[in-house]
Amino acid sequence: MAQPQQERAVRTRAALIKAAAEEFDLAGYAGTSTTKIIKRAGSTMGALYFHFGSKEGVAKAVMAEQAADLPERVGRSGLQRLVDLTLELAQELRSNVLLRAGVRLAVEQGAFGIQDDTAYQLWITRFKEELIVADALGELREGVDPAGFARVLVAAYSGTQLLSRISTGHEDLRERIVELWRYFLPAIATPEVIGKLDFGMRGPEAAQ
Amino acid sequence: MAQPQQERAVRTRAALIKAAAEEFDLAGYAGTSTTKIIKRAGSTMGALYFHFGSKEGVAKAVMAEQAADLPERVGRSGLQRLVDLTLELAQELRSNVLLRAGVRLAVEQGAFGIQDDTAYQLWITRFKEELIVADALGELREGVDPAGFARVLVAAYSGTQLLSRISTGHEDLRERIVELWRYFLPAIATPEVIGKLDFGMRGPEAAQ
Repeated sequence: MAQPQQERAVRTRAALIKAAAEEFDLAGYAGTSTTKIIKRAGSTMGALYFHFGSKEGVAKAVMAEQAADLPERVGRSGLQRLVDLTLELAQELRSNVLLRAGVRLAVEQGAFGIQDDTAYQLWITRFKEELIVADALGELREGVDPAGFARVLVAAYSGTQLLSRISTGHEDLRERIVELWRYFLPAIATPEVIGKLDFGMRGPEAAQ
Repeated sequence: MAQPQQERAVRTRAALIKAAAEEFDLAGYAGTSTTKIIKRAGSTMGALYFHFGSKEGVAKAVMAEQAADLPERVGRSGLQRLVDLTLELAQELRSNVLLRAGVRLAVEQGAFGIQDDTAYQLWITRFKEELIVADALGELREGVDPAGFARVLVAAYSGTQLLSRISTGHEDLRERIVELWRYFLPAIATPEVIGKLDFGMRGPEAAQ
């Protein structure tokens, strides 16, 4: 069991991350001050600097922990699970503040002199894990490299959400991700596997 | 023939775009002032506001005209020409200041409250034109939509260059673009067409 003091520290850190995500989402990096973040979190400057060291440190944490609020998904596996995850992300980007702020900071970081690919590497690892399962299930074409395609998919996804945000405020993102899959799938799966994939994004409940 | 005064205006505008690209490339949007731009261009604030209206107007022009300094390519056609163009861009992003500044602003624009997809639409149009030629040459699979795939490719390319810049300062971009093509090509071309494509990025001279 954690000590009460440690529990408090964990809660404070989480409150700061949440408040920072809300501020960054509203006003971007430049428009957000550490004062605004601690006010919204009901915390102190001492706590913010203890946990993150600086405003840049908070931004890096928001980028790195962008997926922390995503609902846990169970049920489907392999390539279908990866498709589900990418479609779920398209939906979550419209409603999940931590994800949206983290993705926005990861894209715009160069504007503030940050160069940190942690968030991208985390998604690459996550996608790669699903692709390794898909491979074990015999769903991937011979020669497809899970790590290589995971990196390609994260990069392509990042650009797709960026263009969708600029053009439509993410309104067409789900459609664009389905279209992206249409152009990737023949390289990674057989027609038989592709034919069984469901792009309706039914949740695990519907699939059970 | 243009009047001398018009010629002067064209030259002034071009000098301002060039100077702005150099400043934005060095210091980003926030770090660049209109004063720095006119000093570097040897121009005046009146000229800058006459041509662009504001710093935001200059940035939008740099985004929209990012491809203006690209060398004209002739020689190859169809899908090969599109492949050549994407590989050439990977190289130009390392040396062509106008392209690099324009792409950077297009990616980071959200940080400055700009929402302008002009630059992306221009690339979509350009890629689509090459795909229409490829289609006329019989190089595309049935059912491939030149406009749709052009949009997918621009989005995926944007994310690929973003991740490559953050991870390696664009050092691995060429390799990443070749990898991206590997995962797109089976959806858009037959194995026979794919087998003839050259990813060595020989220039038109070498191809003649």
